[in-house]
Amino acid sequence: MTGRFSLNQATTKYWPLPSLAAGCVEAGVTRVGLWREDIQAYGVEKSRRLMDDHGLTVTSLCRGGFFHTDGWLDENKRAVDEAVTVGAPVLLLVSGGLPAGSRDIDGARARVGERIGDLVPHALAAGVRLAIEPLHPMFASDRCVVSTLAQALDLAAPYPPAAVGVALDTYHLWWDDTIWAQIERAGREDRIACFQVADWVTPLPAGVLLGRGLPGTGVVETRRFREAVDATGFTGPIEVEVFDEELWARPGPDILADTLAAFRAHVR
Amino acid sequence: MTGRFSLNQATTKYWPLPSLAAGCVEAGVTRVGLWREDIQAYGVEKSRRLMDDHGLTVTSLCRGGFFHTDGWLDENKRAVDEAVTVGAPVLLLVSGGLPAGSRDIDGARARVGERIGDLVPHALAAGVRLAIEPLHPMFASDRCVVSTLAQALDLAAPYPPAAVGVALDTYHLWWDDTIWAQIERAGREDRIACFQVADWVTPLPAGVLLGRGLPGTGVVETRRFREAVDATGFTGPIEVEVFDEELWARPGPDILADTLAAFRAHVR
Repeated sequence: MTGRFSLNQATTKYWPLPSLAAGCVEAGVTRVGLWREDIQAYGVEKSRRLMDDHGLTVTSLCRGGFFHTDGWLDENKRAVDEAVTVGAPVLLLVSGGLPAGSRDIDGARARVGERIGDLVPHALAAGVRLAIEPLHPMFASDRCVVSTLAQALDLAAPYPPAAVGVALDTYHLWWDDTIWAQIERAGREDRIACFQVADWVTPLPAGVLLGRGLPGTGVVETRRFREAVDATGFTGPIEVEVFDEELWARPGPDILADTLAAFRAHVR
Repeated sequence: MTGRFSLNQATTKYWPLPSLAAGCVEAGVTRVGLWREDIQAYGVEKSRRLMDDHGLTVTSLCRGGFFHTDGWLDENKRAVDEAVTVGAPVLLLVSGGLPAGSRDIDGARARVGERIGDLVPHALAAGVRLAIEPLHPMFASDRCVVSTLAQALDLAAPYPPAAVGVALDTYHLWWDDTIWAQIERAGREDRIACFQVADWVTPLPAGVLLGRGLPGTGVVETRRFREAVDATGFTGPIEVEVFDEELWARPGPDILADTLAAFRAHVR
């Protein structure tokens, strides 16, 4: 048994969904986090049937957000609907960076809060929880203006916890010396919607998106994070989500085996 | 006249020191920030004479710190002494990352505070002010465990402001939504020892060290920073410090001219 472990599909990026489903069963893994681009390519309803047929629980769907782009509301409503269809209780929100030519990060952050509010009724009606994900400050200009857990919790605060929570990813948050207090706060305010684990490995590659490592390969106190999140009373899934070209180049079953081993050695 | 502008030598990395000195005079620039490796190569006392002969004021010396390395105390005392010799009133401290194999960032941060304390008597006796520089959180593991202005101010707090201040660099701090309150705090606590300006440009290059741009080339509200720092009563130099391979490849006088133009358009 693999307990609360969930394989985020991004960790095995090139493993076709049917093989991933069969491989999870083979490895005793019962939970997966999915990505929209992958379930769209395979078919969203077909993905749901595939998960059901293999007894797999979907723990989250990545992602909505990018609130500064044209058509953001329709796109985010579609993302919520896909979460419903595929059986994901949580939709991660990566808020987006600054609009082209803008330096107004305060304005961008305020807009994220407003637009999440616009999305809340649809999410509540659908029974999907939105999870605001703070990304590492190195992504603040081009990917996500929400840079700390404190900001994410402030943005979530106006809305019911059933509608809006936060996603904690160790990769994005490990450097923050206020993180332990903010995790406690996230628990107290009933906002922990998703917990993801990846490690911080240097040197960072160009573009900095694909530099994450399996737990134990870098400097993050991944077990301390898991214990801090558990101490809030959180008993939900723990996704391992790693973006790493070298890891991705390997066969899916090998990646999954190493991911499980890393989870057992450095998270559980 | 170029007012409070100071050319940090790193911006014109490959400009030999005598040419830099002459070029500054030519451009009406009267202030420079220097680097240890460069004044060591040229000769520290000789660098001082060169500055004096050209009527140049040295605004800062980069850098001490790296407190987790062997011989850190002797090395930092040498850095203080070089600051005295070259006439720099301020020595920047880049605190260093995690020791090899360590995940103990709390311990590393505590050690930085202790070791700065060990260095304080030497700095006070020498009349050199130490400036703790928070670096962007993307450098937390391999270059500087001090990631926010709040941390730097907390580390400085036990020591007299004449001995320990902080360095504000827009490149490292721009993403932080608490920065405006912390700049005000830094002024109130009399800790602003150095103010540097660079812009944030994406995509980041591999290793992420050399991705900085001249003011106006990226997303940082550089003038807002200058106004916020001024509002504390700070009237000191404003260094432009940019690490950019493409910029460095150009002739020193051209870089200086563009740096001055960027300063006038986006900082002053």
